[in-house]
Amino acid sequence: MDRRSFLRSSALVGSAAAGLAAPAYAQDKRTLTMVTTWGRDLVGVHDSAQHVADRITEMSGGNLTVEVVAAGERFDAYEVFDAVTSGSADMYHGADYYFTDKHPAYAFFTAVPFGLTAQEMLNWYYFDGGMELHDQLGEIFGLKSFLAGNTGAQAGGWFRTPIDSPEGFDGLRFRMPGLGGEALGRLGANVLSIPGAGVFEALSSGAIDGTEWIGPWADEKAGFHKIAKHYYTSGFHEPGAGLSLAMNRAVFTSLTPAQRAIVKSAALEAHQWTLSRFLSQNGAALQRLRAAGVQLNEFPPSVWDAFARVSTETLDQYMSDRLFAEIRNSVTESVRKSSGWIQRSEGAYRTQRDRVFG
Amino acid sequence: MDRRSFLRSSALVGSAAAGLAAPAYAQDKRTLTMVTTWGRDLVGVHDSAQHVADRITEMSGGNLTVEVVAAGERFDAYEVFDAVTSGSADMYHGADYYFTDKHPAYAFFTAVPFGLTAQEMLNWYYFDGGMELHDQLGEIFGLKSFLAGNTGAQAGGWFRTPIDSPEGFDGLRFRMPGLGGEALGRLGANVLSIPGAGVFEALSSGAIDGTEWIGPWADEKAGFHKIAKHYYTSGFHEPGAGLSLAMNRAVFTSLTPAQRAIVKSAALEAHQWTLSRFLSQNGAALQRLRAAGVQLNEFPPSVWDAFARVSTETLDQYMSDRLFAEIRNSVTESVRKSSGWIQRSEGAYRTQRDRVFG
Repeated sequence: MDRRSFLRSSALVGSAAAGLAAPAYAQDKRTLTMVTTWGRDLVGVHDSAQHVADRITEMSGGNLTVEVVAAGERFDAYEVFDAVTSGSADMYHGADYYFTDKHPAYAFFTAVPFGLTAQEMLNWYYFDGGMELHDQLGEIFGLKSFLAGNTGAQAGGWFRTPIDSPEGFDGLRFRMPGLGGEALGRLGANVLSIPGAGVFEALSSGAIDGTEWIGPWADEKAGFHKIAKHYYTSGFHEPGAGLSLAMNRAVFTSLTPAQRAIVKSAALEAHQWTLSRFLSQNGAALQRLRAAGVQLNEFPPSVWDAFARVSTETLDQYMSDRLFAEIRNSVTESVRKSSGWIQRSEGAYRTQRDRVFG
Repeated sequence: MDRRSFLRSSALVGSAAAGLAAPAYAQDKRTLTMVTTWGRDLVGVHDSAQHVADRITEMSGGNLTVEVVAAGERFDAYEVFDAVTSGSADMYHGADYYFTDKHPAYAFFTAVPFGLTAQEMLNWYYFDGGMELHDQLGEIFGLKSFLAGNTGAQAGGWFRTPIDSPEGFDGLRFRMPGLGGEALGRLGANVLSIPGAGVFEALSSGAIDGTEWIGPWADEKAGFHKIAKHYYTSGFHEPGAGLSLAMNRAVFTSLTPAQRAIVKSAALEAHQWTLSRFLSQNGAALQRLRAAGVQLNEFPPSVWDAFARVSTETLDQYMSDRLFAEIRNSVTESVRKSSGWIQRSEGAYRTQRDRVFG
């Protein structure tokens, strides 16, 4: 909405409501800015931000118009947190583990090593305390946060040469954000946390030896296969990476109850929408990558064992922080509770379906 | 909203908007009736309907108030389809496979034997044509339909005596709706499709020998373990049972674009909310059932093989219907596309996590 039509519609509401208490939803006709940690060309994740923005705009019937400002257009990816807490932007859409320097517990709302799958994250978020803990964390910084996307289990990443043992990571310059990156550092890797928009350049210039990104679809668009030929399809570091919407808390509070419900619902629905988008695209992309000469690999058990050891060490070192410990214990308890049934029902079904129909 | 406050708010809008085109959202302040296929005490599924209703009411800021009328309160469970198509109610929340007598393709929007898991259903629905096909089907009957819940993979069901071979179903009086029930009929079972509200009575009176229902949480509340002691935790018939919201199409069209977006988003978000609710509850319920003396079983491979044979036969017999065939092929193609990646990423991760952490 441009400034002129904003003034025009405000005037209309003003005269129509003369002598009456103007309804709050009409007063609140305004444009909100969403900054993101994604370049405009990063498929899946930028689309997820745009989806949330569009749904809010649509559902509010024009009372709220959300404008997406991609990474690099006004703020760099890692600047969006401060932009929103300071009020320079109204909300961000991004991966919360980019902000573990603000608080290490932000990692749990994207992914931690050996953590939650996408569905386990939802179980925890809705019904085992996750949403309330996200809110406690956001409140420290003046944010109101909701899950707003998921990429599914992320690939182990792109390597120039295969990894046959834990020693393969020694001295490797590798891009991996969050606590997964810290864990990899304990295997001797030289870990860099580079936001999405800069990863391809870092890999092609040789500034890094390898990188994880998301999965076949997004990785193919990013072009990593043109440089590194070894693709590990499963990884320990992000078994279901959540994306978040975080609104400046004062802005959120200024919304009507209906608008707040719209923001919440738009964000949460984007979790499954985004996940489905990645999963529906990844299969075909994997086939294309294979056809382009990419070598599909799995880490051997010795590497998985090493991943597990350094992941536990990494998480353990933050346990003196009360909120980090509370969130970690809450996550662990939630998985422990739900995983048995999931394995006995859907797990057993998939096994039989694969056995019978291949 | 009562009648008096409806009149009051209408009058307010009328005078405020005098001489101007009254905004459509203000004119449309009204109460909509949601009938359901669930008794009010059926946990998980009734809650799912209530969740959708509450979200619509909340997000519309009081312009739409959705009142839930549970099965038996005004219409019986299986009457809700006609109630909505005839305009006696505005929408239903229910399991679409209760309405395969209207069109056999309704089965795909709840579950078909050896069909989609909950996540595969979303992949298909959002991005592989499922939503458009649901809309085509609804249009035949004057409905606007959206997915609005999922129970996850359903348990194989409750039996008085164990099933050791396919012959165990011969002559068994068993409750199972939809095409799964038809498939079981091909194994010689005497299959009854009884809506949720009547199942416990049928089992306790001896009218049926066994029943499937949902999963540990809902099954425990229903009390089936008090009568049948053998519980099969995985089944072939409903690997991820979707629930639907179907609105009378003329009512849907009469809504403003914002209200339509609200209905759609409320329904779709309820898919993951409902699924997470079941999954977060099922694990603990399973432990309680076990403690109450329930015997947990798995069907042997010979029974799964028989399930597969009769499931394929059952689906095949509807392939002369153009829309049924189109939907079945669309589902098959969607799973074929996505399953490889899911197995190579999340599947491999889960295997390693279980191996390392148990």
